[in-house]
Amino acid sequence: MRMAELSRATGVPVPTIKYYIREGLVPGGERTSRNQARYGSAHVRRLRLIRALADHGGLSIATIKELLDAAEDPDMPVDALLGAAQKTVTTGREAGEGPHWDAAAARTAELLDRHGWSDYAGHPAVQGITALLATFYELDRPELVGVLDAYADATKAIAAADLDAVGDAADRAHAVEVVVIGTLLGDALIALLRRIAQADRSRQIFGADRATSA
Amino acid sequence: MRMAELSRATGVPVPTIKYYIREGLVPGGERTSRNQARYGSAHVRRLRLIRALADHGGLSIATIKELLDAAEDPDMPVDALLGAAQKTVTTGREAGEGPHWDAAAARTAELLDRHGWSDYAGHPAVQGITALLATFYELDRPELVGVLDAYADATKAIAAADLDAVGDAADRAHAVEVVVIGTLLGDALIALLRRIAQADRSRQIFGADRATSA
Repeated sequence: MRMAELSRATGVPVPTIKYYIREGLVPGGERTSRNQARYGSAHVRRLRLIRALADHGGLSIATIKELLDAAEDPDMPVDALLGAAQKTVTTGREAGEGPHWDAAAARTAELLDRHGWSDYAGHPAVQGITALLATFYELDRPELVGVLDAYADATKAIAAADLDAVGDAADRAHAVEVVVIGTLLGDALIALLRRIAQADRSRQIFGADRATSA
Repeated sequence: MRMAELSRATGVPVPTIKYYIREGLVPGGERTSRNQARYGSAHVRRLRLIRALADHGGLSIATIKELLDAAEDPDMPVDALLGAAQKTVTTGREAGEGPHWDAAAARTAELLDRHGWSDYAGHPAVQGITALLATFYELDRPELVGVLDAYADATKAIAAADLDAVGDAADRAHAVEVVVIGTLLGDALIALLRRIAQADRSRQIFGADRATSA
């Protein structure tokens, strides 16, 4: 297909497609004349992936390029690739200080230890967890820290399902797509399912006839 | 304490505190003279709550005001209040169309049915779930739809822990704070714990010595 058809098939405007090609996010088409190129289903697929990561996942074009490049680097072992993809979609945090931070850091270390995760003390997610717990302490809501073990157990079940979906990791590009799409869009999906599960639980506890308002 | 001390205690600049008081998010201080007022621990607490909701939860000042007003409305039953708080933190989506959307909507209806959630077909989270599944189909990654049941079960365990944390719902302001803080900051916490659980699961499956890179 021509550029205009590629644009119609994906909903991505022609100037945006040209920009993605210039930036190396999308391969150029097969030249058919001096001013014409032909595009195929691989281009449609790549453009849809970029739009999903940018629109649903909120990733920058630079981050998307980094991920797509990593997926195409044949020297990177699959698990390192998955780790790199995963880190790209993990927001880092600076370490804090003060008594709330110290209490939160101690609680996070205990949690990692109790769940067999002490090897991951240096994972970028850990500072983020500590920052959230520090906020619970700062807001004087220590009871919120009590949900941690239930959350950790639930995320183990979620991660098992996630890695099953990664499936045959011999197909590298596939594995990275599933990790990135599944991680970013999965966060949103989990948050939305949690809303319904909370509404249902709230109805079980507080009221019988309020399904529509809860 | 005076306004300047309140600012130091919370890290919120004086002009921002004045703006919150003008907008009704924070009660005024107790007047001690024509130009002076005294502030207490309730003001510190309220300011920290607003900052947490704005900074970690990404809520607008208008949304925060709506939530705080609902918490103070004595005519709203507790479960309706929790429902309102919960809806405020659920991003709505427009309905889509086309074969991907239709397949996703059918899959979402099946899911609600299978998990005893069919009363929640009108919940604002449902369109969002459908939109995410439609994206999985559009990206030709139907295997990602296969995680749904595991996610739904995991969110039931999460919601049970959440509602336990709500605790004594007779204290309305407390219940709303816990729902809003717990929901927004909880989403972030679950996402971060999921990263560690994924890294650990990936190591179990793909490699032995890669805890630091995974």
